[in-house]
Amino acid sequence: MGINFDNTNSFIKDYEYKFMESQVKLAHKMLHDRTGQGNDFTGWLDLSLHFDNEEYKRLLNKADEIRENADYFIVIGIGGSYLGARAVIEALNHSFYNLIEKSKSPKVLFAGNNISGKYLSDLFEVIKDKEVYVNVISKSGTTTEPAIAFRFFKKFMEEKYGKEGAKKRIIATTDKSKGALKELAKINGYETFIIPDDIGGRYSVLTPVGLLPIAVSNINTDEILKGAFDAEKIYSNDNLFENECYMYAASRQILNRKGKDIEILTNYEPSLSFISEWWKQLYGESEGKDGKGIYPASVNFTADLHSMGQWIQDGKRNIFETNLIIKELGKDMTIENEEMDLDKLNYLSGKTISYVNEKAFEGTLQAHVKGNVPNLVIEIEKLDEYNMGSLIYFFEKACAISGYIQGINPFDQPGVEMYKKNMFKLLGKPE
Amino acid sequence: MGINFDNTNSFIKDYEYKFMESQVKLAHKMLHDRTGQGNDFTGWLDLSLHFDNEEYKRLLNKADEIRENADYFIVIGIGGSYLGARAVIEALNHSFYNLIEKSKSPKVLFAGNNISGKYLSDLFEVIKDKEVYVNVISKSGTTTEPAIAFRFFKKFMEEKYGKEGAKKRIIATTDKSKGALKELAKINGYETFIIPDDIGGRYSVLTPVGLLPIAVSNINTDEILKGAFDAEKIYSNDNLFENECYMYAASRQILNRKGKDIEILTNYEPSLSFISEWWKQLYGESEGKDGKGIYPASVNFTADLHSMGQWIQDGKRNIFETNLIIKELGKDMTIENEEMDLDKLNYLSGKTISYVNEKAFEGTLQAHVKGNVPNLVIEIEKLDEYNMGSLIYFFEKACAISGYIQGINPFDQPGVEMYKKNMFKLLGKPE
Repeated sequence: MGINFDNTNSFIKDYEYKFMESQVKLAHKMLHDRTGQGNDFTGWLDLSLHFDNEEYKRLLNKADEIRENADYFIVIGIGGSYLGARAVIEALNHSFYNLIEKSKSPKVLFAGNNISGKYLSDLFEVIKDKEVYVNVISKSGTTTEPAIAFRFFKKFMEEKYGKEGAKKRIIATTDKSKGALKELAKINGYETFIIPDDIGGRYSVLTPVGLLPIAVSNINTDEILKGAFDAEKIYSNDNLFENECYMYAASRQILNRKGKDIEILTNYEPSLSFISEWWKQLYGESEGKDGKGIYPASVNFTADLHSMGQWIQDGKRNIFETNLIIKELGKDMTIENEEMDLDKLNYLSGKTISYVNEKAFEGTLQAHVKGNVPNLVIEIEKLDEYNMGSLIYFFEKACAISGYIQGINPFDQPGVEMYKKNMFKLLGKPE
Repeated sequence: MGINFDNTNSFIKDYEYKFMESQVKLAHKMLHDRTGQGNDFTGWLDLSLHFDNEEYKRLLNKADEIRENADYFIVIGIGGSYLGARAVIEALNHSFYNLIEKSKSPKVLFAGNNISGKYLSDLFEVIKDKEVYVNVISKSGTTTEPAIAFRFFKKFMEEKYGKEGAKKRIIATTDKSKGALKELAKINGYETFIIPDDIGGRYSVLTPVGLLPIAVSNINTDEILKGAFDAEKIYSNDNLFENECYMYAASRQILNRKGKDIEILTNYEPSLSFISEWWKQLYGESEGKDGKGIYPASVNFTADLHSMGQWIQDGKRNIFETNLIIKELGKDMTIENEEMDLDKLNYLSGKTISYVNEKAFEGTLQAHVKGNVPNLVIEIEKLDEYNMGSLIYFFEKACAISGYIQGINPFDQPGVEMYKKNMFKLLGKPE
């Protein structure tokens, strides 16, 4: 298993974990017995048990077809229908994926994740003369942002390819039987993939919602699933002290009870910045309710050591850090000697960039701990598909356990409806 | 003037501002008389008075040369030598600037803003057969991240173009007389631009640090400067009630004293996401010290309404929001009628996307205010160069005033040194 959790610098005493032991056992039982709040949205918990291999094979075939034919693959979705796919694609692909010429897979762009006329008109300008495939992802088909974007894309594709051509190039990921998008797909003959009923948006990255875009970008989804399914077993132990996923959940809640209101997820690898965005939705939407919640923030180091570093070192002590550390990136460069050592870097010659980065992390950890910031570490053996799958499950399960300890329903999002209600009223939407 | 500040939904009473009036006057006096802490770093305050037009003309000429000759322009810098340029370039250019084929200006990529071997080797893979210009930005030339990146780029450029060819294509933005990069530039014959002594990194976007990359990306820097210089006059009034920039500063500090520890900067336009990153450095590094500080966070709406929206609506009430709202984007699309109204969007037909976005903002504001989140609004007439210049000055000056009210030096960053000291020790750097 490629994930290690380290709480050495958490400032949490053993007996504080002891107090948590029974609460964690209870949360585990609620989750696994499906007796806790929101239990009808726990399909992600044991996905391996009811994974549909036939459907998955069809998905991979479709991904192959898209990879062979498209210059641009447009993913239309918002929230859980956007962040997971983008996070994994950016984490595991080439750092400048969309700039590679003569790539074996299409460029991937996202739409329907904002309401910007500038963004959408700029997007059409870029793709108008290209081969385009579209994946529209929405359970209902009436969520405002993706629905508006798809209305434009449907017209664009039909004008470009005709009705028959568009039909072949539009894929709908939606509810298995009901909703506007399902209906649209049926009438227009789009191929569809199913968003399971028992998995909410923010837990859906390992369903077709995430798997199709990820596969199109030429990432090995078999390995992602293997990593996730192995993690199901590894993190199924209800003993806090033998389950690192639960240790992370318990540590967060202990720190919050000590007045640490903000959790800062750090990384030292730029391609992880959208993993942090995905994580923010997972934890923010799950736990921020009933007047409670740890505010999930993120920084990208070492860039942000020259930005938020000052605050973290020396600002208000209401924060803790969770460091997402990759041991092995797979790519590296070695610093060479220079005759004139004007930049005074010769002491690093023969060292790899990754080695310097590792020391930057260690030095930062020491500094922030000295500055009284509790630090947790989630260390990942290697930046690859298998470990990414495990990490996704690790975070999902820790979130559910943490939410039950906090005393909220980690699977609903009642607060999201309020702005929609106001917006619809202002827009004059018929009842 | 194109910026309006609205505190209608701040939950702050008039007499609370009254209490702030004299504190603001004092902060204004400290800043303008240069008697406050860090007063030797206030060159940005009245940049118009000592702006070097000859130097600026030389900079624009260089930008023209780069625009004509480069496929890729690589900006090497971190913190203040990175965020400002990237923020303005992303805000004002095409949403997919680097994907435009046959563009009149080079693609812009950033380096030296991390310590990732993957990022750097991927970067070289993309540019290796292209025409490349490099702008290395560092006051000292020994900051680890940009120094490492530049060591690789210097070698790459010399191997690609020879010593003479590299010399013409490398531009150094650095100290006027001392430091390793200045020395390197002198010995190798690079053209240089000056980072003024009296302007710190996070206040430096309107110096050559930001202006050169921004101009290369084909943005009108004359207009940015005009907007900033006009703002100098507009925000020079020491009367809180007649100075909206000071009203923003005072509102933040009043809210913080009410226990609002987190300020969330929102936007409704994806191209502003790096304006938020720039803003985070400005406020985080200026105010996060001596155990104090408002934690600066950001969200990109409406995307993040489907992510952090739940938390903001219904989580712990230790937050306030500052909404950065653009009235006029310059580009838009109109939603059309569809015969079959399956997505139920026909009630929006004839409406522009911007109109829907505006209602999304208004609906969200109402919802969050109802959820007891104080909301400030900074409204910008138009997304253009002039207003961007004004906005930069607005935020810089409000930050200085806010910092003096808070009782810290808004111009230093002592906490940033600590991780460096540890890192150097771990790396075995000679004393």
